[in-house]
Amino acid sequence: MKIPVVENVLKANDALATENRLLLDEKNIRAINIMSAPGSGKTTLLQKTIEDLKGELRCGVLVGDLQTTRDAERLETSGAPVVQINTGRGCHLDAMQVAQGLRSLDLDAIDLLFIENVGNMVCPAGFDLGEHYRAILLSIPEGDDKVAKYPTLFQKADVVLLTKIDLSLVLHFRVQQVREDLAALQAKVPFIELSTVKQQNLEEWYGWLRSIAGGTMTG
Amino acid sequence: MKIPVVENVLKANDALATENRLLLDEKNIRAINIMSAPGSGKTTLLQKTIEDLKGELRCGVLVGDLQTTRDAERLETSGAPVVQINTGRGCHLDAMQVAQGLRSLDLDAIDLLFIENVGNMVCPAGFDLGEHYRAILLSIPEGDDKVAKYPTLFQKADVVLLTKIDLSLVLHFRVQQVREDLAALQAKVPFIELSTVKQQNLEEWYGWLRSIAGGTMTG
Repeated sequence: MKIPVVENVLKANDALATENRLLLDEKNIRAINIMSAPGSGKTTLLQKTIEDLKGELRCGVLVGDLQTTRDAERLETSGAPVVQINTGRGCHLDAMQVAQGLRSLDLDAIDLLFIENVGNMVCPAGFDLGEHYRAILLSIPEGDDKVAKYPTLFQKADVVLLTKIDLSLVLHFRVQQVREDLAALQAKVPFIELSTVKQQNLEEWYGWLRSIAGGTMTG
Repeated sequence: MKIPVVENVLKANDALATENRLLLDEKNIRAINIMSAPGSGKTTLLQKTIEDLKGELRCGVLVGDLQTTRDAERLETSGAPVVQINTGRGCHLDAMQVAQGLRSLDLDAIDLLFIENVGNMVCPAGFDLGEHYRAILLSIPEGDDKVAKYPTLFQKADVVLLTKIDLSLVLHFRVQQVREDLAALQAKVPFIELSTVKQQNLEEWYGWLRSIAGGTMTG
């Protein structure tokens, strides 16, 4: 009884995700699904990114959280259009919620759409939202064993961002372990070590964003 | 169609959880479900706890992870009996997995059973495993907004542990905000600020464990 229902849910989600991607393609928008554990620095990185790319790339954000509009409030100070999606007890965003969120945005005024998923290293990985790319954050305090422990998330990454590298001064973290675990999952994935606090290597991330904004569609 | 299936899954889980609790009660074991985001320090705290309580309380561990036996290997060095439960793509432990894990342990040789859940602040909260108590970890690097953002997890806590407080020297974290958000969810819950690295306030946590190991059953 159970398995067919799960399959139907996923099929319905995938069909909606495809519709979302077609709409985004039509509007010439590239969408990036941002995923990580809670507290890896998704919102802080997006705040900084939107400010630094102002005048160059027009950014919009859909942000998912169980409760509160705190992330949306933080992101709104950047001046970008932001829609908060509250999932209640839901552990990830789905394509239906993204479709609803897209209706609240002026899609003619956006080049890059960031979809900040619910902080969770498991469930978001299974749901296509209609994005073109997946960016996964891993922060130094979380530990260097997380790629091996959450392979489903990392094996679908289009870029992996190692955040809070300023904390590697006080915390023991084997970057080489993470690189090896990623290599075991994927032939190659861009891997950027950065710090928003110390403004380290942000240009590398912006370079990746510029490359996808100017690249061909994948959807 | 969907809601009845979810209800049946939860009902089946709850029935098994009740069986697990009865078995634990019969064996005079107190079980604690340990939940947090990935990288909050669950395994490190348990390693230290088991070592420090050696000769006083006999500990056992069931540890859940999607993949790998890394946590179990770390915990085994403490000398305690440890069973690794790999959940595959499953985002939380369930009562069936715990029931299977219990069969691999000598229940006559355990006073305290730690059940280390999958690192995830959403899904584990919804599933009774048959535990008597729920301990929730929140680490300083995750940020002081997490109680408000993940209320479902924190409102069922029997004790909240603020971990990695040694990092409050380098990271801005408003402990008062966390205390206020907890107070808004629950009338009162024990709140312990600790660091395993600096060995701060571990005695407070051990005191709580002693109190439940000597207390009356709740199941």
